[in-house]
Amino acid sequence: MALNSTLRPGLIQMRVLDLDKTLTFYKDILGLDEVARTTDGRVLLKGFDEFDHHSVSLRLADEAGVDLVAFKVDSPATLERLKTATEAFGYPVDEVAPNTDQPGFGKRYGFTICTGHRIELYAEVMLSPNGPMTHNPDPWVNAPRGMRAQRFDHCLLYGPNIAEAERYFTEVLGMFAPEVCNTPDGKRFATWLTSGNKPHDLAFVEYEKPGKIHHLGFLLQDWNDIGNAADWMAKYGVKRDVGPTRHAITRGQTIYFWEPSGNRIETYCGGYTAYPDNPQRTWDISEVGKGLFYYEGELIPTFLQVVT
Amino acid sequence: MALNSTLRPGLIQMRVLDLDKTLTFYKDILGLDEVARTTDGRVLLKGFDEFDHHSVSLRLADEAGVDLVAFKVDSPATLERLKTATEAFGYPVDEVAPNTDQPGFGKRYGFTICTGHRIELYAEVMLSPNGPMTHNPDPWVNAPRGMRAQRFDHCLLYGPNIAEAERYFTEVLGMFAPEVCNTPDGKRFATWLTSGNKPHDLAFVEYEKPGKIHHLGFLLQDWNDIGNAADWMAKYGVKRDVGPTRHAITRGQTIYFWEPSGNRIETYCGGYTAYPDNPQRTWDISEVGKGLFYYEGELIPTFLQVVT
Amino acid sequence: MALNSTLRPGLIQMRVLDLDKTLTFYKDILGLDEVARTTDGRVLLKGFDEFDHHSVSLRLADEAGVDLVAFKVDSPATLERLKTATEAFGYPVDEVAPNTDQPGFGKRYGFTICTGHRIELYAEVMLSPNGPMTHNPDPWVNAPRGMRAQRFDHCLLYGPNIAEAERYFTEVLGMFAPEVCNTPDGKRFATWLTSGNKPHDLAFVEYEKPGKIHHLGFLLQDWNDIGNAADWMAKYGVKRDVGPTRHAITRGQTIYFWEPSGNRIETYCGGYTAYPDNPQRTWDISEVGKGLFYYEGELIPTFLQVVT
Amino acid sequence: MALNSTLRPGLIQMRVLDLDKTLTFYKDILGLDEVARTTDGRVLLKGFDEFDHHSVSLRLADEAGVDLVAFKVDSPATLERLKTATEAFGYPVDEVAPNTDQPGFGKRYGFTICTGHRIELYAEVMLSPNGPMTHNPDPWVNAPRGMRAQRFDHCLLYGPNIAEAERYFTEVLGMFAPEVCNTPDGKRFATWLTSGNKPHDLAFVEYEKPGKIHHLGFLLQDWNDIGNAADWMAKYGVKRDVGPTRHAITRGQTIYFWEPSGNRIETYCGGYTAYPDNPQRTWDISEVGKGLFYYEGELIPTFLQVVT
Repeated sequence: MALNSTLRPGLIQMRVLDLDKTLTFYKDILGLDEVARTTDGRVLLKGFDEFDHHSVSLRLADEAGVDLVAFKVDSPATLERLKTATEAFGYPVDEVAPNTDQPGFGKRYGFTICTGHRIELYAEVMLSPNGPMTHNPDPWVNAPRGMRAQRFDHCLLYGPNIAEAERYFTEVLGMFAPEVCNTPDGKRFATWLTSGNKPHDLAFVEYEKPGKIHHLGFLLQDWNDIGNAADWMAKYGVKRDVGPTRHAITRGQTIYFWEPSGNRIETYCGGYTAYPDNPQRTWDISEVGKGLFYYEGELIPTFLQVVT
Repeated sequence: MALNSTLRPGLIQMRVLDLDKTLTFYKDILGLDEVARTTDGRVLLKGFDEFDHHSVSLRLADEAGVDLVAFKVDSPATLERLKTATEAFGYPVDEVAPNTDQPGFGKRYGFTICTGHRIELYAEVMLSPNGPMTHNPDPWVNAPRGMRAQRFDHCLLYGPNIAEAERYFTEVLGMFAPEVCNTPDGKRFATWLTSGNKPHDLAFVEYEKPGKIHHLGFLLQDWNDIGNAADWMAKYGVKRDVGPTRHAITRGQTIYFWEPSGNRIETYCGGYTAYPDNPQRTWDISEVGKGLFYYEGELIPTFLQVVT
Repeated sequence: MALNSTLRPGLIQMRVLDLDKTLTFYKDILGLDEVARTTDGRVLLKGFDEFDHHSVSLRLADEAGVDLVAFKVDSPATLERLKTATEAFGYPVDEVAPNTDQPGFGKRYGFTICTGHRIELYAEVMLSPNGPMTHNPDPWVNAPRGMRAQRFDHCLLYGPNIAEAERYFTEVLGMFAPEVCNTPDGKRFATWLTSGNKPHDLAFVEYEKPGKIHHLGFLLQDWNDIGNAADWMAKYGVKRDVGPTRHAITRGQTIYFWEPSGNRIETYCGGYTAYPDNPQRTWDISEVGKGLFYYEGELIPTFLQVVT
Repeated sequence: MALNSTLRPGLIQMRVLDLDKTLTFYKDILGLDEVARTTDGRVLLKGFDEFDHHSVSLRLADEAGVDLVAFKVDSPATLERLKTATEAFGYPVDEVAPNTDQPGFGKRYGFTICTGHRIELYAEVMLSPNGPMTHNPDPWVNAPRGMRAQRFDHCLLYGPNIAEAERYFTEVLGMFAPEVCNTPDGKRFATWLTSGNKPHDLAFVEYEKPGKIHHLGFLLQDWNDIGNAADWMAKYGVKRDVGPTRHAITRGQTIYFWEPSGNRIETYCGGYTAYPDNPQRTWDISEVGKGLFYYEGELIPTFLQVVT
């Protein structure tokens, strides 16, 4: 029996082309808090509703994209068990020492999956000094600002052989796939994966080139905050991809747009309560346009063409 | 290590004083669907967004209140394991044969916990014929009506010795308590418990009399639907207890009110994403009024006085 | 001094190609009530929050489009005064007897303005038997259904010489233009006109062909109902033009879409409180894309190309 | 015929007990902008969506309450006409020179009405330098903060002989009363008055003591912002009176609360589109509890007991 011991995607490191502009976006517009900077110039951020040290790391680079996505697991014992199981699945694992490139984080195990992405696992991380209140707590310490992003929620990765990736995340990490989309010949075109009751923590779309990211998603409170996020985009010239709209897949309400370095961001809310015993929702690829963009009813061309 | 193998509270049976009036409320105002009636006159209902056969059973009786709360677990093997563990914890367990008093349900194990409530566990239940779509699904088959209740979400039970109950649900059933409230001498006054990422599936308040229920809660989409629910209450003379307001505890947005038989119902939305590794939120009993009724800032007298 | 004696656009008659399909849309999806049918086969409708007999008349025809837009004025004396002033402005006026083609309506004066549209004025109309409550009223008698349209709100007409049309509606009918858009050589490209505190009751865009309509707009409660309207469109295959989005012009939140006969409809909410003494907002035609579609930031091609 | 030439309540001067605390509330929590201070120590404020110089003046005093409510009229000619008509109605009128105690305001005529309140009329006022944009405008220049109050909307005054006050505002100032409440013997208990399409600009409740104010109201965008306002109240210890709730009267969504000096404030949104030709809504005093507090269904005791 698969132990559902993966908690969530807790850390993502993104490559950005212009640190200052991108940071202004993340802090003043999206509404994340800067936690710290590393000696090698990376900037560490988190949402106002996240307890752990940081969830987003930005690294200056020549090309935008994603360096790594790290999942928190529920204990050191689970971490060791998953290391062994990952190796048994066929992915060589390396170890990152605690509190090195990701300040506050305990030991991490990293490996590259078939889609070309570096995935990491960890069990321990320091609490952030400016996390949510825990004693007689108010809903927020300081009023959410800008787009009012609450937390890093999920990401959608593009790469080859996602059927194997799905198998890894379900069979080894114990996630399940509330929704999948197949081509007419029965091959996976896309899969949505979750560790718990969120409709997705991670998703994959089949893609020729490895290691690509379609978007990283941040949680907003509700549809009204989706409208507010759109107001901020328009006011400050943030380049919008699509939305405000709804996904039929996950049922979330959403906007896709690009931060100044060209990485796509999603502001997302809603979605059903996912359970592993509920029937899996299946999509024909001919209907996936409706599934992704319920109001538009068809695929937005950028969905398949623009990734970083 | 506790296996987090309890999925959710999947069934509640309530005693009602006037079946017709209560049913009109549940179907036409709250917006549940009637699934079936039993030969002994009970009525089985579910929300439009629930897959399983039914989640609410109404039984005509001389006194309002709750007959049982049943939790779905993730497999028959888990069910047997939890039966053994429950007996080891000290609660004698009886077995209810499949498809008897709860049509569509597989084998259930039942037992009375220290607070005087009958709790049941089950691993299998038929899908409802009118559940959500699963192939190229729309968000709803028929537009939600009335208060637009999506699903049975949680309940708050009153009874003695809730510290033991909390221990049972965490240590045996593998739930965790994102928030607790203690008296000045360190005793549990209240506890909120969840199997997953919802802020609560179940809660307890310490109370002298056993087997009481404070409310059962139904999930709405968002704060706007809370307002809509309040419009329906006012229009149709539903007796309101408190709200629209926010809980600081769970952070949900809410209204408490009474159905025609006097059982309290909650229409609830929002709430944070709960994780077992996040710090537990703790409440002083002196601040629990703010915790429960964030806008009112103090306990509503009915909170401690009116239960069924 | 201009007497601000025009109350609102109270009646619009539309030509439709398929009465049954269009009616199903208007009643079951948009949420209007059918009030009556005329002996010549037209169908009369109104929103749940309108008091007057009807506000929308649908006529079967070979070509979609608008037959007439009628404005209610505040008294029979005003009606006579405006008839005279309209003739003095240069538009020949005809008279329609009470209770003829528009059951429940008093005497109407009609005339064709420079843009090729038939405009009518009237001062008296019967109340609808199923209008809003007036004694100890609830907000609604029956819960709004479908897209929850509250009332006919405004329309946007296309035709030649809109500068003259604006002059007619402001100088003769006493409206004012909270916003206008000019071409670089200072000619009117578009104008928004209102009789009161709504940001618009009527708008014009300069267009070569006379007598065209871009859309008729219906009022929704708020942004959440805009989202609900989009859900209904997607579910029932209503053809969407653009939205959910915001207009910077009027500041309203909106979706444009087409009813089954090809006339464009808007579901609209929000917008600022307009006052005649506030500065007029002016738009450069180079920025009107942002003005119309604030989130998209540019003109949608259908805006200038598709009218009926 | 009454010319509907009063535009809106454009200015209110309130007496406050602690200028610093009250100002912190108005600026940081309610979200108004400070425009200027007068040489005699008053502070002038406005909402982000108001064009005129200021709409709220705060004066330090020994007793909280209202000094004056001033209505803007549509022209200097109207101002003179209304001065004459006011005197003819029986209220002696004094004149306040331009740009004296209210910087930026033109000539004002003032008088005390039967309810004991000082009412003023004016036709001219400077624009505020930080009003909304007028050329290719965004919806806001700086994101609304705190409770996101958009503008001063209306006030509810308490005093004797409100039937006469209603007569003054309708017959002389050309307003109309969309809703009224009578005692069983047919006397006015309360009246709601408007100059345009807002459901109220001003309201009166019959009260023994003259010159009292129940609340001044500020416009919010929608029900979601009502919830946000409640979050701010709870977070910052603002003393709440009632809400979030809905008025059946005006249909607005609302919270009443007190600023630090004890004057009651309302954050308000929604409400129907009012028209003078629509039937007047009438309330029996036995049902006015429902009318005022639709969700509570009865009068809140403070409604009749606490005024300043």
